[in-house]
Amino acid sequence: MAEAFLPVAGVRLAAAAAGIRYEGRDDLALIELAPGSRVAAVFTRNAFRAAPVEVAARHLRAGAPRWLLVNAGNANAGTGRAGVEAAEACCRALAAHVGAEPERVLPFSTGVIGEPLPVERIEAALPRLLEGLRPDGWEAAARAIMTTDTVPKLASRRVALSGGEAVVTGMAKGAGMIRPDMATMLAFVATDAGVEAAVLDAMLRRAVARSFNRITVDGDTSTNDACVLMATGQGPEAARARDREALEGAVAEVCEALARAIVRDGEGATRLVTVEVAGGRSEAECLQVAWTVAESPLVKTALHAADPNWGRILAAVGRAGLEGLDVDRVRILVGDVVVAEGGARAPGYEEAAAARAMDRPEVRLRIELGRGTAAARVWTCDLSCEYVRINAEYRT
Amino acid sequence: MAEAFLPVAGVRLAAAAAGIRYEGRDDLALIELAPGSRVAAVFTRNAFRAAPVEVAARHLRAGAPRWLLVNAGNANAGTGRAGVEAAEACCRALAAHVGAEPERVLPFSTGVIGEPLPVERIEAALPRLLEGLRPDGWEAAARAIMTTDTVPKLASRRVALSGGEAVVTGMAKGAGMIRPDMATMLAFVATDAGVEAAVLDAMLRRAVARSFNRITVDGDTSTNDACVLMATGQGPEAARARDREALEGAVAEVCEALARAIVRDGEGATRLVTVEVAGGRSEAECLQVAWTVAESPLVKTALHAADPNWGRILAAVGRAGLEGLDVDRVRILVGDVVVAEGGARAPGYEEAAAARAMDRPEVRLRIELGRGTAAARVWTCDLSCEYVRINAEYRT
Repeated sequence: MAEAFLPVAGVRLAAAAAGIRYEGRDDLALIELAPGSRVAAVFTRNAFRAAPVEVAARHLRAGAPRWLLVNAGNANAGTGRAGVEAAEACCRALAAHVGAEPERVLPFSTGVIGEPLPVERIEAALPRLLEGLRPDGWEAAARAIMTTDTVPKLASRRVALSGGEAVVTGMAKGAGMIRPDMATMLAFVATDAGVEAAVLDAMLRRAVARSFNRITVDGDTSTNDACVLMATGQGPEAARARDREALEGAVAEVCEALARAIVRDGEGATRLVTVEVAGGRSEAECLQVAWTVAESPLVKTALHAADPNWGRILAAVGRAGLEGLDVDRVRILVGDVVVAEGGARAPGYEEAAAARAMDRPEVRLRIELGRGTAAARVWTCDLSCEYVRINAEYRT
Repeated sequence: MAEAFLPVAGVRLAAAAAGIRYEGRDDLALIELAPGSRVAAVFTRNAFRAAPVEVAARHLRAGAPRWLLVNAGNANAGTGRAGVEAAEACCRALAAHVGAEPERVLPFSTGVIGEPLPVERIEAALPRLLEGLRPDGWEAAARAIMTTDTVPKLASRRVALSGGEAVVTGMAKGAGMIRPDMATMLAFVATDAGVEAAVLDAMLRRAVARSFNRITVDGDTSTNDACVLMATGQGPEAARARDREALEGAVAEVCEALARAIVRDGEGATRLVTVEVAGGRSEAECLQVAWTVAESPLVKTALHAADPNWGRILAAVGRAGLEGLDVDRVRILVGDVVVAEGGARAPGYEEAAAARAMDRPEVRLRIELGRGTAAARVWTCDLSCEYVRINAEYRT
């Protein structure tokens, strides 16, 4: 079941089956923006940036893009110079259909690394794709960009601005190779509000920092991560400070909802786990602990079994590298159950209560460091056999 | 099948079943050293050091230890003040039997975290343990300290010194929660050579740096890691520089053999994987890349499937955080097969050849960074469903 979504004035979407890798499903999506739209984007920090990331970043610098062309099934990464030419060829082909410059098209790819992009199949699907553009094409597009995802990921918010109500709607894909680090898997968020380019860019970076950059499935940062924020200006202006704040709040909520949806759909995941770390000296050290816990295979397998093996959490906190950590001040909670304090099992701790707090689709682990007032939060999922099965068999 | 081992003059060992956690097997081991033996040790850097680690470190500072008491099944970690008292009680009980000070006993524990150590069961087993001491007790002791290990781990070397032939024999346990960082899981290495205390300590630290500190199964550093090097002085002296070098070479070989045995027996592992990184600007950056590749769940699942999905290796290299990495100079080899160069698939690359090079019990991944002359090497294993099964069911 996809989430309900609200169309965004000035945005039309379409999906088509190009046969890039999958049979019997759409694997190509197109987003068209009204003239005058503003676009901001953040990309992966992996040193091996995929060809479409290089091309999209360059085209974005060249001027206001109007089309975003996204394919699933092939990442066009690790493909060298030929990969860049393939991404550019797709942009040129679309540009020729719509009578625009190729720089107005941003290409995005997701899927297997290291295989040549079948450009001609994408080209052949473009006429159908353009014919299919419609304002309520969000769900079809969200489905077309899925790889190992099991559900399409959509989120929408309404936000009241001085000039009337604006809408923010986003879609995302991603289920594995998730540890974004300053970008994410593919995410496309649009608003009909009017926003200045610099404001839009800052808004995106702040929202990403607290959403897509706070999730992990397996600690692997992809070569293709990208998150795009689009503002068509067909709705009310977000010119005043409080309008910008309200809009940013809605954008952040949509990003967080999509980020959580990615983790919930993590490869083989059965639980969405929030790791909260409080009482640190700085946000940075809280994050350091949160990531160490969130990426520990031993913690993640215990979460899978709903086994409150808190020793593994404690061991992960201990190896996070915090200088001068006083282990006697550390408290660990599973849900509302205090499992450890003073470096040992909490007095009155009952394992059955902790197991109940873990055996849920959404689990909260809270770690209190007892040495400051900073806090941070990341999202992760459990590690199951299914994760191994998916990733040991992905290409076969 | 355990490896062949050589007894070490001045070392006697015994094993007994204390019923700490397991049924029908030995779970308690004792090592006795001849008077005048020298002992060096390195311990875990995890901030949550288990109670026996605290006590062993303190006793080691107090003077020359003569007995090492090791239990499996219970880590006596996350047990607070009561855990320290339990470890001390075991030392006192053993000391009373042998008529020595409790400080001459070093305690070691491995197993589940957070449960009280059953001191009385250990005490009850001590008479049998002391009666069973014998020079060829190495294999029985190596079996007694196993937890999720499937095989006992032993290694021996002979080394010619000026004054005659010396022997180095070691045993280790460990199969999960392996990312030692300046120490290891439990490892006990002994030689009959005579070595000064400071020399022995330096020898151990250098050997550990290149062996136990270069392995990972799951990136989790245990609360109980310890590696002990013992020199009884019953054999030839290692007083001259070249004797010390020869002895250190043998100690390093024994440590490396034990470290590789730990990874080969990694929980659910089917392959021992050597990750070599060459052409770096410093050993530190080579290690950074090697650890990132060695701990990537996506690389480890691909290794499990013998799937030469080199894009995952490339993505891991790319996210290792090397400043200014020129991806066009990176080469990746699986065994002797060049799979990627220039940031893309190698010309003439044949996937079948790479798959053959991966479908082996021992696999070599080599990454050439093309920007310097430094190199580093770590060992890891593949990630299988069995790892998840073991760790999701460990306590049930």
